[in-house]
Amino acid sequence: MNSPFKPDSIWSIAIHGGAGVISSTMAQEVKQQYYDSLKEALNIGVTILKIGGNATDAVEAVVRYFEDCDLFNAGKGSVFTREGKHEMDASIMNNTLKCGAVSGVTCIKNPITLARKVMDESEHVHMTGIGAERFADEVKVEKATQEYFFTERRFAQLKAAQGIKEVTLDHCKSDVNLNDPQAQVKGTVGCVARDMHGRMCAGTSTGGMTNKRPGRVGDSPIIGAGTYCNHLCAISATGKGEEFIRNVVGHDIAAIMEYTGASLLDASKTVVHKKLKPGDGGIIGCDKDGNTVLVFNSTGMFRGCADSNGKYDVKIWKDS
Amino acid sequence: MNSPFKPDSIWSIAIHGGAGVISSTMAQEVKQQYYDSLKEALNIGVTILKIGGNATDAVEAVVRYFEDCDLFNAGKGSVFTREGKHEMDASIMNNTLKCGAVSGVTCIKNPITLARKVMDESEHVHMTGIGAERFADEVKVEKATQEYFFTERRFAQLKAAQGIKEVTLDHCKSDVNLNDPQAQVKGTVGCVARDMHGRMCAGTSTGGMTNKRPGRVGDSPIIGAGTYCNHLCAISATGKGEEFIRNVVGHDIAAIMEYTGASLLDASKTVVHKKLKPGDGGIIGCDKDGNTVLVFNSTGMFRGCADSNGKYDVKIWKDS
Repeated sequence: MNSPFKPDSIWSIAIHGGAGVISSTMAQEVKQQYYDSLKEALNIGVTILKIGGNATDAVEAVVRYFEDCDLFNAGKGSVFTREGKHEMDASIMNNTLKCGAVSGVTCIKNPITLARKVMDESEHVHMTGIGAERFADEVKVEKATQEYFFTERRFAQLKAAQGIKEVTLDHCKSDVNLNDPQAQVKGTVGCVARDMHGRMCAGTSTGGMTNKRPGRVGDSPIIGAGTYCNHLCAISATGKGEEFIRNVVGHDIAAIMEYTGASLLDASKTVVHKKLKPGDGGIIGCDKDGNTVLVFNSTGMFRGCADSNGKYDVKIWKDS
Repeated sequence: MNSPFKPDSIWSIAIHGGAGVISSTMAQEVKQQYYDSLKEALNIGVTILKIGGNATDAVEAVVRYFEDCDLFNAGKGSVFTREGKHEMDASIMNNTLKCGAVSGVTCIKNPITLARKVMDESEHVHMTGIGAERFADEVKVEKATQEYFFTERRFAQLKAAQGIKEVTLDHCKSDVNLNDPQAQVKGTVGCVARDMHGRMCAGTSTGGMTNKRPGRVGDSPIIGAGTYCNHLCAISATGKGEEFIRNVVGHDIAAIMEYTGASLLDASKTVVHKKLKPGDGGIIGCDKDGNTVLVFNSTGMFRGCADSNGKYDVKIWKDS
């Protein structure tokens, strides 16, 4: 992509791996796994951005990492539908308003890459289900079997959500409170970035909510809701998808900036704290000047950010 | 639905049956069919609203009429995918931010009714494909075979879009210019209404674009893009779906009203004439005070509006 901007030395990135009720009594070992994975994801993006790489490439690479890591609810670590299957959604958008989204895909190893192919190599913006999977064949996006997406931990979460009590997997109990029906519903991964050429991009990917109805689509593939990017900012959301759709969260933040002149931080706080309800989730964002924000109204959000000024931070709870 | 408002005598409604390149040399007989159908649709809504009925009931009833009428690209009159099938999208939203959407459904006689069931009887907002169709069985929404959706006219349009020249159906040639590749892409139906209780609703339904890839989802089921409603206004869009998704058209109009204090008309003109490109399509809208707008940037839009002040109008081109 050619850019109208001359390269400057500014870049920034923010990432998330889901928001919700995250138990603070999580075992130290599990906590460390999350911190390590968040850092690894962040480093992938930083490596691309600090040599002048493209924001879209950084976002895709980071989200692919999350999709391949079974700690997070996207790709490999996707949760189960009520029928014990996996249905994934993803989308990507850049500051030129180019965008791509896929929903209800069952056999795509990296849904974010298919979303990018929809953006770059189709005349469409959003493709769903079998049609999206057939498009994947045409553009040679890697497929995977449903077995690839099976993880013991997510299966235990499904059983717990369905009220089946024989769940005894230690790992499973250690990071989510299975007795809290809200604990499982908010997993999503995302990344936003601003590169040295002033380009921005936002991407989001998810396995949806544990025990969801087959066919349910959340906010992650909805341009304007779970993912949005324009000339002012890039936003990726995570939380109760239905609330993020009805509040058109990503676009609302961009609109507050555009029409009131608010900063990215103020606009994000308005939407997350005044329009959404406590516990709904959160967002990450970056703006054209390289600022990053990570705003949420749940007990925690797996997240990180870094920029060309030397910022580098990875957190789970409010002040961890 | 209980309303916080005392009933007043104000109601309003606007409808559309698609926008695009509509040939003004259309045969008088065909033109009359469109005017008659638009009036019939409008009258269905007016009948409900003038006795104090619910805006959501009016919108659903009007959109169902359009879906059952094979003149319009929704339900019965849906266009064909490149594989000669039908895949339909619809959504509905009211001023309490309750909403429902379905995408990629192939066997639902009235997709708008299924979208309403998603809104009223599921915990979800958007359902796609086979999962949506199975939900239809649970909530007893009427199914139809693919044969039900076959119409000679749409089949001729598919052949024309695929470059097959033996199209000779008079009816087909009379209302669209088959040599113009843009002529077929913008069919959608929609309705917005404001009832005597101050409630508002927007609904949109479509068969998508002729010769589309299987799995392609347009703006009609995307909350914020093709359909949006909040405490300020109700919007339904029709046009090049991809452009309406990337511009988050419905929510952008509402956001301009909310954050700048603009009127519905000024906000709609800003989005349709300054953000979208000429030929992209148009929108209909109503606001809480009962104003209606019908704004488009294409050569025509099948449309109508009526209100409690005696307004009653049905048009196709700019000044017809």
